[in-house]
Amino acid sequence: MEVLTNGTVTSPIGFMATAVPAQIKYSDRLDLALLVSEQDCAAAGVFTQNQVAAAPVLVDQETLVVNNGRIRAIVANAGNANACTGKHGLADARLTQTAAAFELGCEADQVLLLSTGVIGVPLPMDKMQTGIYAAAADLQRRNDENAAKEEGGLLAARAIMTTDTRPKHLALQVELSNGTVTIGGMAKGAGMIHPNMATMLGVLTTDAAIAPDLLQTLLKQAVDVSFNRISVDGDTSTNDTVLLLANGASGIDVAEAADHAVFLGGLTHICTQLAQMIVRDGEGATKFAAIQVTGAASQADAHAIANTIATSPLVKTALAGSDPNWGRILAAAGRAGVAFDQQQTALWVSNPGGAALQLVAEGMPTAYAEANAAAVFAQADIDIVLSVGGGTAVATVWTTDLTHDYVTINADYRT
Amino acid sequence: MEVLTNGTVTSPIGFMATAVPAQIKYSDRLDLALLVSEQDCAAAGVFTQNQVAAAPVLVDQETLVVNNGRIRAIVANAGNANACTGKHGLADARLTQTAAAFELGCEADQVLLLSTGVIGVPLPMDKMQTGIYAAAADLQRRNDENAAKEEGGLLAARAIMTTDTRPKHLALQVELSNGTVTIGGMAKGAGMIHPNMATMLGVLTTDAAIAPDLLQTLLKQAVDVSFNRISVDGDTSTNDTVLLLANGASGIDVAEAADHAVFLGGLTHICTQLAQMIVRDGEGATKFAAIQVTGAASQADAHAIANTIATSPLVKTALAGSDPNWGRILAAAGRAGVAFDQQQTALWVSNPGGAALQLVAEGMPTAYAEANAAAVFAQADIDIVLSVGGGTAVATVWTTDLTHDYVTINADYRT
Repeated sequence: MEVLTNGTVTSPIGFMATAVPAQIKYSDRLDLALLVSEQDCAAAGVFTQNQVAAAPVLVDQETLVVNNGRIRAIVANAGNANACTGKHGLADARLTQTAAAFELGCEADQVLLLSTGVIGVPLPMDKMQTGIYAAAADLQRRNDENAAKEEGGLLAARAIMTTDTRPKHLALQVELSNGTVTIGGMAKGAGMIHPNMATMLGVLTTDAAIAPDLLQTLLKQAVDVSFNRISVDGDTSTNDTVLLLANGASGIDVAEAADHAVFLGGLTHICTQLAQMIVRDGEGATKFAAIQVTGAASQADAHAIANTIATSPLVKTALAGSDPNWGRILAAAGRAGVAFDQQQTALWVSNPGGAALQLVAEGMPTAYAEANAAAVFAQADIDIVLSVGGGTAVATVWTTDLTHDYVTINADYRT
Repeated sequence: MEVLTNGTVTSPIGFMATAVPAQIKYSDRLDLALLVSEQDCAAAGVFTQNQVAAAPVLVDQETLVVNNGRIRAIVANAGNANACTGKHGLADARLTQTAAAFELGCEADQVLLLSTGVIGVPLPMDKMQTGIYAAAADLQRRNDENAAKEEGGLLAARAIMTTDTRPKHLALQVELSNGTVTIGGMAKGAGMIHPNMATMLGVLTTDAAIAPDLLQTLLKQAVDVSFNRISVDGDTSTNDTVLLLANGASGIDVAEAADHAVFLGGLTHICTQLAQMIVRDGEGATKFAAIQVTGAASQADAHAIANTIATSPLVKTALAGSDPNWGRILAAAGRAGVAFDQQQTALWVSNPGGAALQLVAEGMPTAYAEANAAAVFAQADIDIVLSVGGGTAVATVWTTDLTHDYVTINADYRT
């Protein structure tokens, strides 16, 4: 596995991207991105489980069912989520597909959609159409001028930002049995957009050739241990979506089982890195904590406990206060709905690369020095390991602290 | 039903209480309470479901199994939760029972325990014993001097406070078929104690005669629609406990089905009032919101949706910001794990006694005036009603806003 410096979704062969300022809501920044593959793509998608799914989510899900293997483009916009917009929202999403297809010379159901932003407000279709036209023209210009490919991917990563403070993108190459393939990715952060919704969007591309069913399986596996293991505020959105396009432009097939594993390793690395970028850029975050639960009876148990700790307001305010308040960690673990014996719990804390300090053994505090624990919690990166018994399952969830700035961003933005 | 002004746990016949400053952690306030019944009591208890249950919870559960019908006293302390203290903590809890029994002339397993405060620190048994001795002596003095009974209950309500800003107590009388019985109650709040744990404790007393099994059933029913319907931060503690003692001193039996219903009505009223007092006194709270979900297929569904809304950081920061950000309410509902059709949702907001303003109909915003919605959210008391379909089940959860002061109380207390 080789990480490509400044890699983006356009690092894989045969993908181009750009972005334009479409004035959808923001007045002076990129807010509409267009990603196009030269060849038809197999596609995979993982979507919000929220019952109030936004129109682009519903349209993408249907599009993947009817036309997988022939996907050509993704249109992404920031500033308007096209959520809670009823039947009109669905019509606007389909119109967006049609507008992009017209410019790109493909069919409407070869276009996938991503939206993030304010909800309950109709998508401004005039601005969307104008933006798509401008983006397609710019893509043509880039193609004619042989512009640096990575730059377009970087523009796209900037265009999907909302409350993010920096773009999030990455690419890498993996060696398969028949040659090298490239995987690229970009994401926007968890946290709430001004003024309305938390959203997490991710786009992954690869020039490997992979059948749609396998692609979906691999994406699901990678997302389960990456994007599904992060928490900023525990709220999930109407728009959360991760899409993966595979266009086969490298001529290299992911067919053998050994190649599956290598490709999955690369895909998981990209997803994990993007997920951690999202957490580190979480609203108001000053701390990054990896919560690892060991000794559980099952992966599901370990994940449930780690997730409950990671979303606990008491744990997250303790992190904000640099307070090694381990009682809150145990108490959060105890309400995860998983049975364990508190007399068998043990807890260690450390900073990356540093020695682990054991705070709890057999459910009781050890004779640790408070100053040592405080020193660990004073750092920006904190690793917490909780063992809940003699099981073999392990899970890690990444989270942030809960700060005054989080409340400010999410409560006081009108003043 | 008649509410008794300034009623407490000592309003029912045959109960006495007092409190003393035992210096368990606080240096200049009441922190140890003693509640005693002149007669043996049937008792019922509802306890934390947390796997990391504190020693007094474990001891109470065992005591109720072996000796129900013969309970005589409750010892409650603030400042130390006796949680995460391993086997030593269990021994300390049993020693507390023994110390109280010695002073009161009863058996150790006729004494129930409540503790709230810092966790992971051994209970200071010398101070506990000195405090119990002083409290028992004061009870004897009050008895000899015929002191006002309610006063002792008020002292006890003060002694169990931690981050609470005011004592929480109430009593009322209900008319049964054979006469009048009195029910009293006190509680301490949800929110975190300096410096460690969120805890909710409640003590209820009645002079009605009720069999233990029936008492447990009635308490469970009352708690399910009161203490189990509040949220300050979604964290549950190692110590959450509600105890109900029935001493039969009124000579009135709760035996007939019609009397069950009347008694349950009174008990539910007390529990609901205490629960709402806890929310209104939540850490950093400036708003009180009643989240009612209607049109659900089942009570469990309605409760799950209401609870997810009530614990959403995005909803709670919107409340703090007086922002009628209805999208966050729908998005939180959508991730409750309950299936519903977003095109059938409707949302109304109002202030108590005021007209309801409909913000959402058929999943889309109505043509409401933003200023009118903002006016509702500017008030301290906000009623939110979300209909999720054509079902008949309804549930209400009470919650607060998430404010800078919450973060300050829970992160910055060392500075």
